[in-house]
Amino acid sequence: MKRPIGVIDSGVGGLTVAHEMMRQLPNETLIYLGDTLRCPYGSRSEQEIIQFTNEMVDFLLKKNIKMLVIACNTATAYTLENLRKTLPIPVLGVIKPGARAAIKMTVSNSIGVIGTEATIKSNAYEKALKNIKPEIEVQSLPCPLFVPMVESGILSGRKAEEIVRESLAPFIKQKNMDTLVLGCTHYPLLKETIQSVTGDDIKIISSSDETAREASAILEVHELLRADDDKTDHMFYTTGELDVFERITRELFKTTVHDIQKVNIHQINNSI
Amino acid sequence: MKRPIGVIDSGVGGLTVAHEMMRQLPNETLIYLGDTLRCPYGSRSEQEIIQFTNEMVDFLLKKNIKMLVIACNTATAYTLENLRKTLPIPVLGVIKPGARAAIKMTVSNSIGVIGTEATIKSNAYEKALKNIKPEIEVQSLPCPLFVPMVESGILSGRKAEEIVRESLAPFIKQKNMDTLVLGCTHYPLLKETIQSVTGDDIKIISSSDETAREASAILEVHELLRADDDKTDHMFYTTGELDVFERITRELFKTTVHDIQKVNIHQINNSI
Repeated sequence: MKRPIGVIDSGVGGLTVAHEMMRQLPNETLIYLGDTLRCPYGSRSEQEIIQFTNEMVDFLLKKNIKMLVIACNTATAYTLENLRKTLPIPVLGVIKPGARAAIKMTVSNSIGVIGTEATIKSNAYEKALKNIKPEIEVQSLPCPLFVPMVESGILSGRKAEEIVRESLAPFIKQKNMDTLVLGCTHYPLLKETIQSVTGDDIKIISSSDETAREASAILEVHELLRADDDKTDHMFYTTGELDVFERITRELFKTTVHDIQKVNIHQINNSI
Repeated sequence: MKRPIGVIDSGVGGLTVAHEMMRQLPNETLIYLGDTLRCPYGSRSEQEIIQFTNEMVDFLLKKNIKMLVIACNTATAYTLENLRKTLPIPVLGVIKPGARAAIKMTVSNSIGVIGTEATIKSNAYEKALKNIKPEIEVQSLPCPLFVPMVESGILSGRKAEEIVRESLAPFIKQKNMDTLVLGCTHYPLLKETIQSVTGDDIKIISSSDETAREASAILEVHELLRADDDKTDHMFYTTGELDVFERITRELFKTTVHDIQKVNIHQINNSI
């Protein structure tokens, strides 16, 4: 099945999901679309989030994708259920893969979740966790500084550690908590710094890594895996400027990505 | 969705999968069937394995199961693809969940697989791993003593460690290998002993734990998760004697399981 996999995000965070998919599924071709122009979605109305996400989906459906990965927590919370019902291809979000991995990992049944203010307010992780295992205790904490940190390239070093330590201070006292979910696709870029602050007793779950793992499972169940027959050729699209996009891809992929194009999905959507 | 989940195995090994499902999916009800009478399947012909598995499936379909988990490596290798095509419910095996978890875990791309002689001979793990990620290097090793050890209750202590150390000797020299897949559902009962022999630098993947995790994902995608509305009531069936079955459930569940019934699925199948 040579058709590509579509990956959408409100901006650059979903690149951590794309990167893990490229690592775990090296035969597959990805088409990534980041709506950097209208990012962040966290402060948008529900109607806007749904409209913008639909515009991204329309753009990718025209590229003949075989599966859609919503690599954005906010868009997952507001659009996953409906897209799963209406699209003719499998659709995967980032919240439940992280929740399932945390349930598998925890022994104490006490799980911490960090994310943007919008994600923490939506209670999406808590609902997903308790829906599967009601006795799980969930402590949630918004970390509003982490996305701007990542987008400015502050990933490690003394300054990064200071901000992470201050942000996570309410969690360090939770002695029972043994598992921490990175509930934002930007946060895996801070994973080492976060781990150095929490110490090794707390296991960190990256919802990006777990989403890539479940994408692999879903491709197999739907018999959509690509055979190893030719070179993959990923494409990256952004609705905004290229600078942050280029910086994050360089950091993640350890190489310069040339196949980045700026697109206007709003116009494209109107021209249908 | 109050219908139970069916779990089948040639004997008691699949109880490690059932145990993890009970832990990760505490709202769900399981019906477990172990064909202890005709165990092990590893030395049976393909035709026998298919016939015996079909008899187990028929027994469970009458119990109105909503999903089938083939918690046996041999049965997975020989029957998964066909059952997935013919049954009207989702079907999950144990091989690919372990393979996907290993691909997610490995950094060196060098993975070890241990299993029964039949499983190692089938090359099922190597095929599953290379199908997803061709550059993975796979070292496979049959450990024929591990199943009899587990069934005799030798799980830890000096004798267990000696046998595990001798069995794994060819692997200890593989310096590049960073991930070891327990490719037999009996082996998670030896996990601590195996980890003490390999050291902490090798990450151990239990295909039982990973299968439970993917069962959770598949229930969610198919909208089959059970709401948290009443107490679950698992049932265990075996075609053979109860003694090993009772010993393993006591070891795993840390309590005596009373709901074990001996059944004759061959007769039941004939009476259709």
